[in-house]
Amino acid sequence: MKKLMNAPADIVVESLRGMAAAHPELRVDLAHRIVYRAGGPVPGKVGLISGGGAGHEPLHGGFVGPGMLDAAIAGEVFTSPVPDQILEATKNVDAGAGVVHIVKNYTGDVMNFEMAAEIAAAETGVEVVSVITDDDVAVQDSLYTAGRRGVGVTVLAEKLAGAAAETGRPLAEVAEVVRKVNAGGRSMGMALTSCTVPAAGKPTFDLPDTEMEIGIGIHGEPGRRRVPLAPAREIAEMLVEPILSDLDFTGGSGNDGVIAFVNGMGATPLLELYLMYGEVAALLEKAGVRVVRSLVGPYITSLDMAGCSVTLLKVDDDLVRLWDAPVQTPGLRWGV
Amino acid sequence: MKKLMNAPADIVVESLRGMAAAHPELRVDLAHRIVYRAGGPVPGKVGLISGGGAGHEPLHGGFVGPGMLDAAIAGEVFTSPVPDQILEATKNVDAGAGVVHIVKNYTGDVMNFEMAAEIAAAETGVEVVSVITDDDVAVQDSLYTAGRRGVGVTVLAEKLAGAAAETGRPLAEVAEVVRKVNAGGRSMGMALTSCTVPAAGKPTFDLPDTEMEIGIGIHGEPGRRRVPLAPAREIAEMLVEPILSDLDFTGGSGNDGVIAFVNGMGATPLLELYLMYGEVAALLEKAGVRVVRSLVGPYITSLDMAGCSVTLLKVDDDLVRLWDAPVQTPGLRWGV
Repeated sequence: MKKLMNAPADIVVESLRGMAAAHPELRVDLAHRIVYRAGGPVPGKVGLISGGGAGHEPLHGGFVGPGMLDAAIAGEVFTSPVPDQILEATKNVDAGAGVVHIVKNYTGDVMNFEMAAEIAAAETGVEVVSVITDDDVAVQDSLYTAGRRGVGVTVLAEKLAGAAAETGRPLAEVAEVVRKVNAGGRSMGMALTSCTVPAAGKPTFDLPDTEMEIGIGIHGEPGRRRVPLAPAREIAEMLVEPILSDLDFTGGSGNDGVIAFVNGMGATPLLELYLMYGEVAALLEKAGVRVVRSLVGPYITSLDMAGCSVTLLKVDDDLVRLWDAPVQTPGLRWGV
Repeated sequence: MKKLMNAPADIVVESLRGMAAAHPELRVDLAHRIVYRAGGPVPGKVGLISGGGAGHEPLHGGFVGPGMLDAAIAGEVFTSPVPDQILEATKNVDAGAGVVHIVKNYTGDVMNFEMAAEIAAAETGVEVVSVITDDDVAVQDSLYTAGRRGVGVTVLAEKLAGAAAETGRPLAEVAEVVRKVNAGGRSMGMALTSCTVPAAGKPTFDLPDTEMEIGIGIHGEPGRRRVPLAPAREIAEMLVEPILSDLDFTGGSGNDGVIAFVNGMGATPLLELYLMYGEVAALLEKAGVRVVRSLVGPYITSLDMAGCSVTLLKVDDDLVRLWDAPVQTPGLRWGV
């Protein structure tokens, strides 16, 4: 295992410590492993939080800031945060307007966020609405999941619901943005190499030099199939086709096109991600899908896995406006 | 070799095609492999261009936009662009106020940019000032270099000179910003793994599972020494110590602190880069070096190499103002 780290057990907290040093606009609670905006909760604004296992950076801590999250909670690598952490963040971001939890669909996350929401309501009266993302078309159930896995759509949901919260929308409407984004978004990923969990010290799975895994999850969970290495053009087809088969992205009322998102898994450089985006864009044009916004880069990663995922999201005028709204976080930043 | 690509010979132009598709705010000349701002030259503004071999993305094409470069020229992977390409970009960004070339110190780049500048002056009367970056303290001469290599400081120079050009400073002053940044900046890098050049199809060098290379260049050029893998804390020392030995970052008149930049080499995820930043920040504090701004992420990469580099830059009030000025490029974006 070759990683820039000290002891494997300290990687998450030491990374958060570096983040705190690099970003004075954030406040990091190292004991609870929570990243907050330094300014504290915004009076009257719905609090928006997310979290999950570490190893997917910049998700979620890199998305804390004006126009996006109020706080992000990190568990151990690929391990859900515990209810106490989530409860702590929930209480601290509440400014009287309630709190939305964005939860990726993994059994541990769903259970722990749910428990935290119940305790928050019972003990403190904070109103919490949880919305689950489950956009991965690759597999129905998985190693850590009942139902579909939550992947790339989570990034888009955090941006779009963050903009909705920032402009003063009430709790139910902010939660509705997340639901709408999850309903209109689909993803599919692939891996060229395995990731290596620091505590394990060796690759999560074996993938021969001549093969790749199509439909991979963001924790190295098995995908749909192993296939021989193929040109980027064919890989793009293997990712786009299942997405377009799962949901109609070409028409329907109120459909003003899509946001197309090509995500890097952690060890794939931008040179290759842009090349993949070119292939995806060409396929979408051929399929009659109109791309109105795009995002290319490593935003929801899987440690040092090489590979990529494609996410498509149906948008209407409102979602495009929310997308274009200012955002100022370490990971996403524009319009401010 | 496992890469998201089609034919190795097409990787640069196909990646540029994807970039054009993803960024309508840019105009990409695929024939000349030049990335421009879509709006064309800004009347009265000094034109600022840079370029070099591909494989270092987002450098340079990802740094084209308001507040940074007017154009970026890409060669083949790890190969200088030819004079014709550089001449074409130079002519197209000139708005009557002259053009600054930022050139990393590699023999091919220096020669080809110089030739293009001479032809531009002779044929078209465009006034060009070239400034070379050579901030790498690791080695004096190298595989592709007489003198020090140009590395991380190039990113900072493009940002700072870009801000100077955007605010209307004349040719000599914009060039002077680049010189000042290069004079006050130092870098040192390391690799955990080799990169693989697409056309070669195999790793550039062999690095055993138990070793790392300290002082690596951004093309996989040999560094100072091979050493056994070590904790991040020790790696940070191996990078920071030679930088602080080379230049005094603690005092002197007009020294208002430093910009500290921890850069990813392409395959190292953000989790590890932030951890490294924490170690670097702790060392700088101990050494009495005051960090006033920071940057953490993969900004000048070496294909799929795992590893990082550290760059420190002395800044005064003027450089801090230029750093904080708005920038709107795919790779760096804030304040707009």
